[in-house]
Amino acid sequence: MARQTRSTIEGTVNGVDVDRLKSTVEVMRAVPDLAKFTFRATNRWMKGGLNRSSIGGFHGAGAENHRDGFIIDTAQPPLVAGGDEAPNPVEYLLHALVGCLTTTLVYHAAMQGVRIQAVESQVEGQLDLRSFLGLREDLPGGFEGVDVRFRVKADCSEAELAHLMDVARRRSPVANFVVRAVPTSVVCEAM
Amino acid sequence: MARQTRSTIEGTVNGVDVDRLKSTVEVMRAVPDLAKFTFRATNRWMKGGLNRSSIGGFHGAGAENHRDGFIIDTAQPPLVAGGDEAPNPVEYLLHALVGCLTTTLVYHAAMQGVRIQAVESQVEGQLDLRSFLGLREDLPGGFEGVDVRFRVKADCSEAELAHLMDVARRRSPVANFVVRAVPTSVVCEAM
Repeated sequence: MARQTRSTIEGTVNGVDVDRLKSTVEVMRAVPDLAKFTFRATNRWMKGGLNRSSIGGFHGAGAENHRDGFIIDTAQPPLVAGGDEAPNPVEYLLHALVGCLTTTLVYHAAMQGVRIQAVESQVEGQLDLRSFLGLREDLPGGFEGVDVRFRVKADCSEAELAHLMDVARRRSPVANFVVRAVPTSVVCEAM
Repeated sequence: MARQTRSTIEGTVNGVDVDRLKSTVEVMRAVPDLAKFTFRATNRWMKGGLNRSSIGGFHGAGAENHRDGFIIDTAQPPLVAGGDEAPNPVEYLLHALVGCLTTTLVYHAAMQGVRIQAVESQVEGQLDLRSFLGLREDLPGGFEGVDVRFRVKADCSEAELAHLMDVARRRSPVANFVVRAVPTSVVCEAM
């Protein structure tokens, strides 16, 4: 009977601490400067197509936020003269896109009291390597287009799901970014 | 005496198999369709702000390229109601950007016979969280701007290095993408 309780959502929904998220919303509504975040990475070349990023603290909510951080590599497959030690940079971009859309969907569903059982997605992007190789200066470079397909199992109607997905597409920071750069389709079906 | 040998670069430079890369260039110059690549990811929601991508095969050089692939997570820090199990999606976007710029720089240096000893970079992006939280529909969402700083130690003059960095910025697939979306600065100094 989730629907009857949606007006008084509290506690944790979809693994999201809704109380905390709502208090964050109220704080940032009152003091907009606290919503200004700066995220960072540093990177070091290892060899050939392999390099390594270190991701640590960030600035947000008016303070520096320390954390131990993460080390992540990127590399190239043999076809692009690499050793395939890690995903390549454009694959990380696709990961960022579906990861961000998923989190935005799950968070906004939680704030509206919609319980989610499963979210799966597939993404692909088309790239003409001639720009990277210097064969064509006139091509846009980067992805020419990006297509995302979601399958979601949630405690809501298909119309509500379509609305949630639309909210996710408009509010997801990475999706926003991708949509501004290239034609992007995002479709969603209920499981 | 690298400069004297630049007209006959062969073998491996900067860990990049230049012979292989040059033959790739020639093949794709002759048959442009072989330059059309499709990269992919699939993603599954785990809980809250945590989800997991699987990155495997890709289409390129006229064929499906299988590989065992990679599993990568993304999550949110506690300030954004998450468990901080992994970098968040916008941090992966920054990683993709500096990783791609670095690889493009190193590859093009190799093809020109410029030997590189070190590449280090820092990147940061500014984000107003009010778009994600639904407090402001009028904000662009995503990064408002991205700043990248490179330090490079290479067997070339500062002018040659500046030219290489410019080539990297124009040809890097992820940088191309980012530049189209938001104001982006890339500066480079010699170590």
